[in-house]
Amino acid sequence: MAFTSIQKIRFDDVDGAGIVYYPQYFHLCHAAFEDFFDSAAPVSYPELVVKRRLGFPTVAIQSEFYAPLSYGDIAIVELSVSEIGRSSLKLGYDIRRKRDGVLCFHGDITTVLVDLETLKPVGIDAELREILERFLSGPGPGTGTGTGS
Amino acid sequence: MAFTSIQKIRFDDVDGAGIVYYPQYFHLCHAAFEDFFDSAAPVSYPELVVKRRLGFPTVAIQSEFYAPLSYGDIAIVELSVSEIGRSSLKLGYDIRRKRDGVLCFHGDITTVLVDLETLKPVGIDAELREILERFLSGPGPGTGTGTGS
Amino acid sequence: MAFTSIQKIRFDDVDGAGIVYYPQYFHLCHAAFEDFFDSAAPVSYPELVVKRRLGFPTVAIQSEFYAPLSYGDIAIVELSVSEIGRSSLKLGYDIRRKRDGVLCFHGDITTVLVDLETLKPVGIDAELREILERFLSGPGPGTGTGTGS
Amino acid sequence: MAFTSIQKIRFDDVDGAGIVYYPQYFHLCHAAFEDFFDSAAPVSYPELVVKRRLGFPTVAIQSEFYAPLSYGDIAIVELSVSEIGRSSLKLGYDIRRKRDGVLCFHGDITTVLVDLETLKPVGIDAELREILERFLSGPGPGTGTGTGS
Repeated sequence: MAFTSIQKIRFDDVDGAGIVYYPQYFHLCHAAFEDFFDSAAPVSYPELVVKRRLGFPTVAIQSEFYAPLSYGDIAIVELSVSEIGRSSLKLGYDIRRKRDGVLCFHGDITTVLVDLETLKPVGIDAELREILERFLSGPGPGTGTGTGS
Repeated sequence: MAFTSIQKIRFDDVDGAGIVYYPQYFHLCHAAFEDFFDSAAPVSYPELVVKRRLGFPTVAIQSEFYAPLSYGDIAIVELSVSEIGRSSLKLGYDIRRKRDGVLCFHGDITTVLVDLETLKPVGIDAELREILERFLSGPGPGTGTGTGS
Repeated sequence: MAFTSIQKIRFDDVDGAGIVYYPQYFHLCHAAFEDFFDSAAPVSYPELVVKRRLGFPTVAIQSEFYAPLSYGDIAIVELSVSEIGRSSLKLGYDIRRKRDGVLCFHGDITTVLVDLETLKPVGIDAELREILERFLSGPGPGTGTGTGS
Repeated sequence: MAFTSIQKIRFDDVDGAGIVYYPQYFHLCHAAFEDFFDSAAPVSYPELVVKRRLGFPTVAIQSEFYAPLSYGDIAIVELSVSEIGRSSLKLGYDIRRKRDGVLCFHGDITTVLVDLETLKPVGIDAELREILERFLSGPGPGTGTGTGS
């Protein structure tokens, strides 16, 4: 199961080459991550950050860019959960453009839940863990086990 | 006397029409305001905000846009001080493009020094006031009176 | 009649003082302007810009900031039309935060329809003019005529 | 040999958690890439993009985030060239904060030179290739082989 966030490419999202500026793809991912909290989690991401002083800073990214997004495109951002550790959370993001369904971007983004005062890792609690598990992606190609899948 | 900050127009500063996105002009102004503190004030703006928990939020803007800035332009931002009240500070900004000296933007931006915890106005202290006075612009055309002031 | 656009304040919209960075208010206005075209106009703003090579660059702004927006706020942006000239279009924007209805910002933004290749003004056509007229705000305080209102 | 670009962390670069928003690290990388062209290449990046209609869109990223950057930090961005193919160019970026020299970020960013009209790859010409070769990083730890290459 994946969580989907729909986002308009705005007038300022493009760069001097007329296509979406590549750091902006990560902004689309983060907006989807926030929307996921708003829709599915026990607290919104602002509440987590501002009230509980917790956050999920990014520690690693692997991503590929396949096709451009342009001004006027609608981006369909699909978020799924790849791995849940004690504090770490690895998320997969696919971004497609609505007009033709073309996959523009895939990113694997690893985050860690930390106390924002100390930046020390904090365990993901049972309630959030259970919700995240609903969005676990199945094993991808090449990650299967000895018995095959 | 005016304070000058030189800033490159970056790849992401343009919009879908290929010219600098108009909210970005205010970002150029704010960057010049920060550079002014770095160069001329007793504390940097980050110190003022993070350590002293003071800041100058904007309360009013009047601005005119005369000519576009494009990708690759160098923006010359001139800041001068128009009025200093007890807590309020009115700044004038002229933005020119370096390639031809054309005035692209003029803005009058009124800010107020506040305590960031309470958002209540705080008096501008004598040390900062004295520095700001050095950048006071003279009376502009039509603002002087017959008898002088 | 006003056009309303609802927008989430995102994780990156705040500044070092922890409230929405003031240039970002103009981004909220522009997003509402784009949403207005998507909802009410014969062409979307991307079509106008990319296909017809027309646009409405900003030529003047008068704005006041009354209260801060914070991370997690929902901004309610109301757009109305103040004046329609041959090529010029003056728009009024009110931004309220949803949690308490407080008016955070009012801006009057004057734009001109131009040919993006030449940047010369172009007349607003009858179809768009008729739509814009539906969003004309009534006369504000002080703009009434001799017979009073 | 590495190319170094020094950049101020600005008031709007931080997020709701009070540290630099992670997509902004890629903006720092791109700004360094533009500064590299301004300083070392036969054409500036705006000239390459606007006049020659060529560009280096990003096709893949691998990056790690080690420590946060905060408002008021000075970022020292070091760019070096890892691999030069016919059209592809792999760059390595290290971002350190000036106050303590701590490495905050490392990114490997693969780009491809394309014709911006067709988005088809274009060979990197001899003049640019020669310049890029001056910034080739030596083999990193663990990438050299016993027999050399």
